[in-house]
Amino acid sequence: MTTGRRGRPGYDLAALLAVAVEVFNERGYDGTSMEDLARRLGISKSSIYHHVAGKEELLRLALGRALDGWSRIAGQASELKAPAIDRLEYLVRGTVGVLASELPCVTLLLRVRGNTEVERDALNRRRTFDRLVADLVAEAEREGDIRPDVDPATTARLLFGMVNSLVEWYRPGRGSTADQELADAVCAVAFDGLRTASPAGPRASRRLLS
Amino acid sequence: MTTGRRGRPGYDLAALLAVAVEVFNERGYDGTSMEDLARRLGISKSSIYHHVAGKEELLRLALGRALDGWSRIAGQASELKAPAIDRLEYLVRGTVGVLASELPCVTLLLRVRGNTEVERDALNRRRTFDRLVADLVAEAEREGDIRPDVDPATTARLLFGMVNSLVEWYRPGRGSTADQELADAVCAVAFDGLRTASPAGPRASRRLLS
Repeated sequence: MTTGRRGRPGYDLAALLAVAVEVFNERGYDGTSMEDLARRLGISKSSIYHHVAGKEELLRLALGRALDGWSRIAGQASELKAPAIDRLEYLVRGTVGVLASELPCVTLLLRVRGNTEVERDALNRRRTFDRLVADLVAEAEREGDIRPDVDPATTARLLFGMVNSLVEWYRPGRGSTADQELADAVCAVAFDGLRTASPAGPRASRRLLS
Repeated sequence: MTTGRRGRPGYDLAALLAVAVEVFNERGYDGTSMEDLARRLGISKSSIYHHVAGKEELLRLALGRALDGWSRIAGQASELKAPAIDRLEYLVRGTVGVLASELPCVTLLLRVRGNTEVERDALNRRRTFDRLVADLVAEAEREGDIRPDVDPATTARLLFGMVNSLVEWYRPGRGSTADQELADAVCAVAFDGLRTASPAGPRASRRLLS
């Protein structure tokens, strides 16, 4: 952050984006005007236009931070020489990491409704990611590592429903050990379930799979 | 729905509430005025005031439908003469049922931010419910039915994060069998995990619990 003309605080693009995302999350993207952003930033609208073409570009940049994080993790997962269930676990741990490091942008992404072209592009990239997860679940089922009694698309939604629900309560900042413990907890519940394993295998699995 | 004066449609309170919840979910509660509601309903504001004191009463009634559903299930669960893990599973199945039968009101409840007294009361009732879930998880851990390596409060949040994420994609109306299958899928993932049980018990459980 630098000091602009007339002693008012100036912003570089990253700092401006951080404040914009905060306001979008508070008031909703549709409910936020450039005027609102200028007021919160304490700068003029033209100072904002110095950095970006408008509100939609701020949205595109913010959603891109979350989506690029997911894409990076998806790319790394697909390059692993490992069974599908391990690539799936890598994906879950990675998206918990992206959520922890980019919480405001991920929160914004999860609220996108598709009213603008930028939002529709983001929803398309989300759907591509969802398909990748469902494909990995199906592959792990074929490899015999995931129980075959749950539909892959439903499983993928439940799994990432759990991951994404973290935006409602998780507040990062306690360090990477805390983020790691959270990823462990998510994987413990999702992959192995809450129930204590009995020597003969989990009770309800037996019931459902019989 | 009856026909009001001048041939315009009239509404009983239930029909009026259904439309109000739809508009609240579309525009956000804060972003919806009585004027917006009157326009969508095609009736005058005074016709709405004939049924309710104002916008906040509509919100209270809507949130009450979701919260009363949760309370009913919580009461039934606590009366079961069964281990804590079975009462917890009853609670999960019951809340999936409430979500399916009261989807718009549950969706509204999950977006409540606490800006008004009605919203703060609803958040308090949600917190009471969350504590009940965390207590049940802790009790099931003491009874040896839930793995002890995950914190009860985190577990409760992950479990109901998964349940509540259903509002993002589940569209009821395919009948109670579909709702039942969904509850089965949620319980399968949450209680027994995705991983196929091996004769010696799930792999990662072994790793985490050793």
